[in-house]
Amino acid sequence: MKHYNLGFLGFGNVGRALARLLVAKSTELRERYEIEWSITGVATRGMGWRARREGFQASSLLGNSVDASSRPALSTGINEWLRGARPDVVFETTSLNHETGQPAIDYLTAVLKFGSHAITANKGAVVYGYDELSKLASAAGKSFFFESTVLDSAPVFSLFRETLPAVKLRAFSGIFNSTSNVIIETMEAGRSFDEGVKMAQELGITETDPAHDVDGWDATVKVCALAKVLMRLPLKPSDVRREGIRSLGTQKLQAARIDGKPYKLVARATLSDNGSSLNASVKPEQLASTDPLGNVRGTSLAVHFELDMMPGLTITSHRPSLHSTAYGLLADFINAASG
Amino acid sequence: MKHYNLGFLGFGNVGRALARLLVAKSTELRERYEIEWSITGVATRGMGWRARREGFQASSLLGNSVDASSRPALSTGINEWLRGARPDVVFETTSLNHETGQPAIDYLTAVLKFGSHAITANKGAVVYGYDELSKLASAAGKSFFFESTVLDSAPVFSLFRETLPAVKLRAFSGIFNSTSNVIIETMEAGRSFDEGVKMAQELGITETDPAHDVDGWDATVKVCALAKVLMRLPLKPSDVRREGIRSLGTQKLQAARIDGKPYKLVARATLSDNGSSLNASVKPEQLASTDPLGNVRGTSLAVHFELDMMPGLTITSHRPSLHSTAYGLLADFINAASG
Repeated sequence: MKHYNLGFLGFGNVGRALARLLVAKSTELRERYEIEWSITGVATRGMGWRARREGFQASSLLGNSVDASSRPALSTGINEWLRGARPDVVFETTSLNHETGQPAIDYLTAVLKFGSHAITANKGAVVYGYDELSKLASAAGKSFFFESTVLDSAPVFSLFRETLPAVKLRAFSGIFNSTSNVIIETMEAGRSFDEGVKMAQELGITETDPAHDVDGWDATVKVCALAKVLMRLPLKPSDVRREGIRSLGTQKLQAARIDGKPYKLVARATLSDNGSSLNASVKPEQLASTDPLGNVRGTSLAVHFELDMMPGLTITSHRPSLHSTAYGLLADFINAASG
Repeated sequence: MKHYNLGFLGFGNVGRALARLLVAKSTELRERYEIEWSITGVATRGMGWRARREGFQASSLLGNSVDASSRPALSTGINEWLRGARPDVVFETTSLNHETGQPAIDYLTAVLKFGSHAITANKGAVVYGYDELSKLASAAGKSFFFESTVLDSAPVFSLFRETLPAVKLRAFSGIFNSTSNVIIETMEAGRSFDEGVKMAQELGITETDPAHDVDGWDATVKVCALAKVLMRLPLKPSDVRREGIRSLGTQKLQAARIDGKPYKLVARATLSDNGSSLNASVKPEQLASTDPLGNVRGTSLAVHFELDMMPGLTITSHRPSLHSTAYGLLADFINAASG
């Protein structure tokens, strides 16, 4: 049996869902993986940098009563927090900056230098920090994992890392942004763009400002993360031809649906002939139902890979929930602990 | 760098494709995985038990000139063959017996007792021998892998073993037999069952006698293998409600296709409410295009999982080739060597 101190950098919807999942799976973690855990650090904008070596009550954290439960130490920044919480694993779920990946990269750097496993839900940290963070992790003998950044909890990065040795990835395509597809489907049913946004908000899959989703940034950053990790090619968001869904009108969408080739926001990356660069785009495309991504609907997500060893391999995640996203982080934790 | 002696038990289409793949990937195996290899044993009905400690020429083996190349020793049975070839890894690709899993289980038992990794393409060995062979492998510190037995080269067993810790599988469904689906699609185009069989034979996906495919045995044995390994439930082929595709007439198939719900041979297994048994079937079903398996066509294969952590996860392998099947065995080899 090994005990793990856990640190939460960010404790919003995903962090909270993960804490609930850890509680729900605690017996299985102990019996099957010999993992015991306590949360010794939590940091959020609201509560500051909080550390408590003897552990917080998960129930108090989830009930927002961190202070009453423990009077935890208030650190001045990440390094003091790490020294106070002594985490074996840090879950980083702070907000995304798609142009720099900061401050997540600085946080993860500090975490790995301290000697903890670093697990992030932050795509930007992968796009802008993968090389440096991987080197740090390797030098420290720790894991830098980020399974939940693309396609939610469905295995994508671990699929290639663990199950597909010696393959060459030639191209991939994907439906990576559920907000855009929910809006498109709402408009196909005759309603407006704004009603589509409202629908996505009610489903809890988009922010108050949906720009990040509908202008294609979310899908673009995911393309860059996949290119970087699976193809070892640096691709910046500005290298991706990006076109969002704002210009699609209700009539155009309805006509395409009736024609059997509805629009979806599709992400693509294809290796150049000499294998040294990528041709990448995120844009609305009409897909026939025979397309590998053709029957991805609603909040479902999918990625399609073209490999030297297999003509096509598609992974589809149907209607992932917040619970599923949290599972991506839990799986990273167990894999890091077992690794 | 580590050198691996490789033994081939069976050297038919799959074994040959694997040998070609090993040659094609030899530089990458050396440079990326520090794996060097030579084939020190081959056994087939035609050539008998052949061992050559200094290695066969892969090109000679592929050219059917094993004798000319090497005058290899002729052993009297598997144990003498193992002592002669001293394989680190044995690839077992002998014919399937779907009622007993023999002689594959006896071969794999001998291989693991000798102290080699055992890699098989044989579903029967998984259905009837999984517990015993896993125990032997574990005791010997070796791997018993069988990724290519279901869904060809697409990761299924390794997906659960390596990337999906702490999940509970509640149900799965799949399109596991491409021959049946090619026949159905040929008949939808107005042709006869026999013409469908001929088409499948021309595609190289079925034997002279297609009974094993069209009567649902192939899919049934795959359901049992998945149940045994992923759900730890013993399911015998006789426990599966099995109905093949022979009773489907051309008109019925055409009408279903026009109706937008074409028939496919679908395999299903669902956990009982108390979690102790399975309700399993293999039978023709009409699938709408919105079904997770709804757009699997031609020789493509797919499996759909329902998990406690994810509402649905579908893996689709598009038009796998013999090359892809061989890759399943290669991936097992690299994973065993890295493990």
